[in-house]
Amino acid sequence: MSQPKRSRSGRRQRQTSGNDAPAIIPYITRAIPEYELLGEEGLALIEKNADRILQEIGIDFRYPPALKLFKEAGADIDHNRVRFPTGMCRKIIQDSAPSIFEQKARNPARNVMIGGKHTVFAPVYGPPFIRDLDGGRRYATIKDFRNLVKLVYALPSLHHSGGTLCEPTDLPVNKRHFDMLYSHIKYSDKAFMGSVTSPERAEDTVAMCKILFGDKFVDENAVVINLINANSPMSFDESMLGAAEVYARNNQATVISPFILAGAMSPVTSAGTLAQILAEALAGIAYTQLVRPGAPVVFGTFASSISMQSGAPTFGTPEPTLVLNGAATLARRLGVPFRSGGSLCGSKIPDAQAAHESAHTLLPTIISGVNFVLHAAGWLEGGLASSYEKLMLDADQLGMMQVLAGGFDLSENGQALDAIREVGPGKHFLGCQHTQDNFKTAFYRSSIADNNSFEQWISEGSKDAVMRANQLWKTTLEEYVAPPIDVTIDEALIEYIDKRKSSFADSNI
Amino acid sequence: MSQPKRSRSGRRQRQTSGNDAPAIIPYITRAIPEYELLGEEGLALIEKNADRILQEIGIDFRYPPALKLFKEAGADIDHNRVRFPTGMCRKIIQDSAPSIFEQKARNPARNVMIGGKHTVFAPVYGPPFIRDLDGGRRYATIKDFRNLVKLVYALPSLHHSGGTLCEPTDLPVNKRHFDMLYSHIKYSDKAFMGSVTSPERAEDTVAMCKILFGDKFVDENAVVINLINANSPMSFDESMLGAAEVYARNNQATVISPFILAGAMSPVTSAGTLAQILAEALAGIAYTQLVRPGAPVVFGTFASSISMQSGAPTFGTPEPTLVLNGAATLARRLGVPFRSGGSLCGSKIPDAQAAHESAHTLLPTIISGVNFVLHAAGWLEGGLASSYEKLMLDADQLGMMQVLAGGFDLSENGQALDAIREVGPGKHFLGCQHTQDNFKTAFYRSSIADNNSFEQWISEGSKDAVMRANQLWKTTLEEYVAPPIDVTIDEALIEYIDKRKSSFADSNI
Repeated sequence: MSQPKRSRSGRRQRQTSGNDAPAIIPYITRAIPEYELLGEEGLALIEKNADRILQEIGIDFRYPPALKLFKEAGADIDHNRVRFPTGMCRKIIQDSAPSIFEQKARNPARNVMIGGKHTVFAPVYGPPFIRDLDGGRRYATIKDFRNLVKLVYALPSLHHSGGTLCEPTDLPVNKRHFDMLYSHIKYSDKAFMGSVTSPERAEDTVAMCKILFGDKFVDENAVVINLINANSPMSFDESMLGAAEVYARNNQATVISPFILAGAMSPVTSAGTLAQILAEALAGIAYTQLVRPGAPVVFGTFASSISMQSGAPTFGTPEPTLVLNGAATLARRLGVPFRSGGSLCGSKIPDAQAAHESAHTLLPTIISGVNFVLHAAGWLEGGLASSYEKLMLDADQLGMMQVLAGGFDLSENGQALDAIREVGPGKHFLGCQHTQDNFKTAFYRSSIADNNSFEQWISEGSKDAVMRANQLWKTTLEEYVAPPIDVTIDEALIEYIDKRKSSFADSNI
Repeated sequence: MSQPKRSRSGRRQRQTSGNDAPAIIPYITRAIPEYELLGEEGLALIEKNADRILQEIGIDFRYPPALKLFKEAGADIDHNRVRFPTGMCRKIIQDSAPSIFEQKARNPARNVMIGGKHTVFAPVYGPPFIRDLDGGRRYATIKDFRNLVKLVYALPSLHHSGGTLCEPTDLPVNKRHFDMLYSHIKYSDKAFMGSVTSPERAEDTVAMCKILFGDKFVDENAVVINLINANSPMSFDESMLGAAEVYARNNQATVISPFILAGAMSPVTSAGTLAQILAEALAGIAYTQLVRPGAPVVFGTFASSISMQSGAPTFGTPEPTLVLNGAATLARRLGVPFRSGGSLCGSKIPDAQAAHESAHTLLPTIISGVNFVLHAAGWLEGGLASSYEKLMLDADQLGMMQVLAGGFDLSENGQALDAIREVGPGKHFLGCQHTQDNFKTAFYRSSIADNNSFEQWISEGSKDAVMRANQLWKTTLEEYVAPPIDVTIDEALIEYIDKRKSSFADSNI
């Protein structure tokens, strides 16, 4: 393994700039090696099996334009079923898909690099419910959505504003994408995700991005990244493929994500699941490159298992860890960025179960070298609920991963031989010069953990981590200051939204 | 990296034997590679720095017999300070210390291999307090100690009975080792740890082991393993060295453990801390080999940081992860087994903080290739309290680590191509033949996690993980059945204890 060096992603990132405003660390650059559980023999076997799936079984693309593109590229088409000659998808991808790309944010200091040794943390995506300690669990609203955008903006360990932080269920289904996008743009200056629920909503996303960034800039840069889930096993549906087409055509980024609850959408074994994931990802990614060669695209994997008793999804168990790790390695071998992991859990509340499961997803995420991490904070209840408190708990853990990814400081100061010489046997290091010199940045300082004495903890109300997280998100929201936005752009966005919203009737379909 | 193969440590281990009694998995054999954060350059640098510490600064051995042994071996002695010519400790160790050894249990099916690709999980060690959900936190008693021995015996993911599971504070300090040892022997048949608080108590431990195993067997086999903490920085005290001498002379295993709260007992940097740990371990391990060449010995590391605000120890943060990982690699290069990690946390209760911190200690423990894992379950509040509920929560996580360590199943069944072919695009795997064939062993089944629907969870009382763990330890204790023990041995142990206890007065010093 190569020698890790302390990089900019390390401890120094927590230093503040001269004016005491926190320095922006737009994303992590990992100085630590990737942990790879599968060796060459296993990886080659899984790649061969994926090729067999693509050639012998095939993938369903329920979208005629996709069938046409694949036919022209040399695939065998039978109704919706596409079978691929050996190596066809891999060649298409390796001929044009970028191994790394930059997603632009409206604040250039927050542009994110997706691929290579970089890791970008994005928040929870998709829950219809919201939970907090005060109100319990309820349907999420646009107010919750805006609150989450603001909190994510304020949390330095989250590098990306994400997408559907929660479903604003108080808004009509066919119009809520306008309000979600506007909230990301208005209340944050971090990079964000677009709508994928229909090609029209993808077009709206691109149109709003063009207002924000300009037409030419959008055509030449990835300004939005979009989650395209497969209908695993081995199937992609029309709305997702149509949205993917819109984004790829406009040179915008897609994450092609097999969505796996192993035992239901894939075999109960990790090696079988991996071969299927690779086959699905190869086919989906190749599609984006046929739409527009060079369009930025990410190999995605959502990996969970089901309980063999109840069929419920389970998280933080060893099998999804194996799948995540193997898929990360397969993506590196393919040569495209990889998305997986996060802070997943099945627990209904942010208790020890939630934390165990989240940690056993998150640490594998960082050491496996995942590039884009959706659901990195705020995910609860198998993705059915976003949680204010868990957002804060998870964000603290993300900060720790950032330091871990910095690896060892092997400088003279890091070696600290002078300190050891100064202190000597049987003494303590608390007051020595080296400790004083490194006092501010020596160790990660958790925003949540209580390390006080038992007696002090009692005197402060015997609060658990969730109660402390509850205080923290309220304070953070109170102290939120919106990033400035150009008034003419803001007005143009509102005008576009108003015009579009009034052009068709509300619908919850 | 070598190709991991599914080993006996994997999923199959959870299968039951023919008579439906759980098969004993005495320890984990890792089929996954070790994750190593430091490369050759960094490791060589730290080894060089450790040599400089040993040669230029030296280590205090506050025990005249140790000074005599080191002088004879060629070290430079100045009062209690021992300075070592470059490479001296390493040579002494590599000339005689075993790279792997077996600790015998009174049930041979539970013998544990310590070293190599093996990992042995042992429970929490040392807390004066006990906590459970019903009674809160209180001083621990011998009844708690016995309960913990019984629970650890009943938990298959704990391979070892451990040592001071909690301090039985209702017994005199100078006699409680008898009751602790007797409890381990009587209420469990797993391997256990001995007393290290004085040479006399170590002699008592050896004497009781001889009653249990026979004199000759004890001289020829490791039947007890013993935790010898350094007084870091760079110092060993008389009682620990005296106890270590007793055990090494009797061919019993010691764990030479630098005890590090970085920032207090070592520099605030990971590379500096590692060099000091290596120096301390080299000196301490060499001492055991001078006492008796070939005596089984383990390179130990207890690694934590302190809060730079309060001085309190912190756990589960990135810096101790780096130190643990680096020390594990250094021990492998030295060629001796390694002890570190566990399920450490600073939280006062088994909440999300406790789980986060424990998980971020435990997962690094397994992937770094730790061989002997003290505090693997039940540790709370920085080691001040043992917790009934956390014991159960942690043990569940240990079971997951056992499966993870099994790696990928790359057999035909693991590849599952037939299943993928049978099911095909757009269908589900729930009822397919392959799923049915693998139903029982497909995924890890947590004993704690609730993966039911929100509605079902509500209807069952909205229990959090700790409440479920509370029920589980009570049921487990109710169902406990003691392993049989030879009556004459039992009587001889009681006779020895009675005789010894009546030979000197109670004392709490």
